Amino acid sequence: MRLQPSDYKYFTEIRVYWGDMDAAQHVNNLVYLRWAETARIDYFAASGAKMNFKMEGVGPILGWQECKYIFPLTFPDTVKVGVRTLEVLEDRMIIECAFFSKKYDRLAAISKQSVVPYDYDNLKRAPMPQNWIDVIEKLEGKSFKIG
Amino acid sequence: MRLQPSDYKYFTEIRVYWGDMDAAQHVNNLVYLRWAETARIDYFAASGAKMNFKMEGVGPILGWQECKYIFPLTFPDTVKVGVRTLEVLEDRMIIECAFFSKKYDRLAAISKQSVVPYDYDNLKRAPMPQNWIDVIEKLEGKSFKIG
Amino acid sequence: MRLQPSDYKYFTEIRVYWGDMDAAQHVNNLVYLRWAETARIDYFAASGAKMNFKMEGVGPILGWQECKYIFPLTFPDTVKVGVRTLEVLEDRMIIECAFFSKKYDRLAAISKQSVVPYDYDNLKRAPMPQNWIDVIEKLEGKSFKIG
Amino acid sequence: MRLQPSDYKYFTEIRVYWGDMDAAQHVNNLVYLRWAETARIDYFAASGAKMNFKMEGVGPILGWQECKYIFPLTFPDTVKVGVRTLEVLEDRMIIECAFFSKKYDRLAAISKQSVVPYDYDNLKRAPMPQNWIDVIEKLEGKSFKIG
Repeated sequence: MRLQPSDYKYFTEIRVYWGDMDAAQHVNNLVYLRWAETARIDYFAASGAKMNFKMEGVGPILGWQECKYIFPLTFPDTVKVGVRTLEVLEDRMIIECAFFSKKYDRLAAISKQSVVPYDYDNLKRAPMPQNWIDVIEKLEGKSFKIG
Repeated sequence: MRLQPSDYKYFTEIRVYWGDMDAAQHVNNLVYLRWAETARIDYFAASGAKMNFKMEGVGPILGWQECKYIFPLTFPDTVKVGVRTLEVLEDRMIIECAFFSKKYDRLAAISKQSVVPYDYDNLKRAPMPQNWIDVIEKLEGKSFKIG
Repeated sequence: MRLQPSDYKYFTEIRVYWGDMDAAQHVNNLVYLRWAETARIDYFAASGAKMNFKMEGVGPILGWQECKYIFPLTFPDTVKVGVRTLEVLEDRMIIECAFFSKKYDRLAAISKQSVVPYDYDNLKRAPMPQNWIDVIEKLEGKSFKIG
Repeated sequence: MRLQPSDYKYFTEIRVYWGDMDAAQHVNNLVYLRWAETARIDYFAASGAKMNFKMEGVGPILGWQECKYIFPLTFPDTVKVGVRTLEVLEDRMIIECAFFSKKYDRLAAISKQSVVPYDYDNLKRAPMPQNWIDVIEKLEGKSFKIG
């Protein structure tokens, strides 16, 4: 069943720029992943997670991502991005972004990303910080079985 | 077993630019997908596929992609991108790109992409053109069981 | 005297994304020109100019641009872009964008651009369309001496 | 008189990517400035200038840039970028990049940039380091009257 806005508790809105389109006259495939980057940073900021973007202590890095393209977007439009955590694992979280076109009221693409806690002081992966789990559970209103 | 350059018959080389790095002082996650886009266009051009980039007739569109980030790249470097076709299906092909750092002689990331034949005249997906299969089989030196 | 928001009648607002920053941990120099591109397209749309972005008839092309960087921007922030027409000449218009940081309430950069009417059907520069002059004069509330 | 490759002693070559084109099906205006950024970093590296990109000590920042667009570029092509120093002033250097299309053997655009020495330790502009002047004079084979 197709994803709906009602599947998400957190949203961020992003404008499509003319310059986001490529020579095929649709928004270029990369742009969706710029939006995903922006949306997950907004989401973590909204959660209140103590995430360090200064390359000290433990901060998030992107380990993997995918994007499925469903409906091509064009300028002008505004994309409503729904963000949610699908899974919390011992060493990573799986985040999902759904991109809804406001102009067409339609799902345009879905991206999943694996966010990995990384210990910048010791240059290695870190275990999932309890604070990240706590604030995400609070934002999502549910608990995640870590596994 | 980790991917090796010897797993690929086709390569393209791409320079890392200083501006490819983001505030984490590594090449930004999007840039790998720009390289993948470039590498698969090079690959199709090398195959001699009759692919239309003019939005007429049947041309390739990107249906899905993923990227796994293994080792962070930095400027200056040159990336050697190995490209191969993993599968040919009735309505899409799965292409893989492996990004090798020349500076570190190391696999930095792997991307897979689903390339879909699209009929621009009738605005719908098209069956896989026989010409695409033929030239890819010639470039790869093997035949694909379509399925 | 430094440019002020009160020097402009038209504004557009654009969010700074984390990914707009480069390895120097400031917004990269190119990003200001993406904003300028976006802001002048918004400005022309707001004017009601009959501008063709379909590469048929007479449409606008960018002939020249400059940007002066005054104060480095960082994520998160929102940029308030003031746009105005400085001059209308026989074969081009000079547009100015001023980028104000909302976070710091401060002028961050100024860009000027030369927008040239181009006749896509005959592949050559075109004289300034009277409609463009009329709508810009209406938006700016003043008349331009063409010359 | 139009700029020629013979006006430059230093060149760098950059490939045009398909994704560099925008919806007008030409290389987007921003891309030339990405090339300029890349070319001036290459140029300074070739000069052997002791330039710090680590935001410590005195490093270069971009104070101003302009670009004049002469001939629209398309994929595929390779751009040969000629770089030279036009002026050395007490607090900045003016660098020029000329972008020549290899496919069309033609000047496509010209950019000038003002590079400013910046003292990251004291967060203010710095006087032009003598080392920068020395190595640029050696690379250009001429001396600059500072002023």
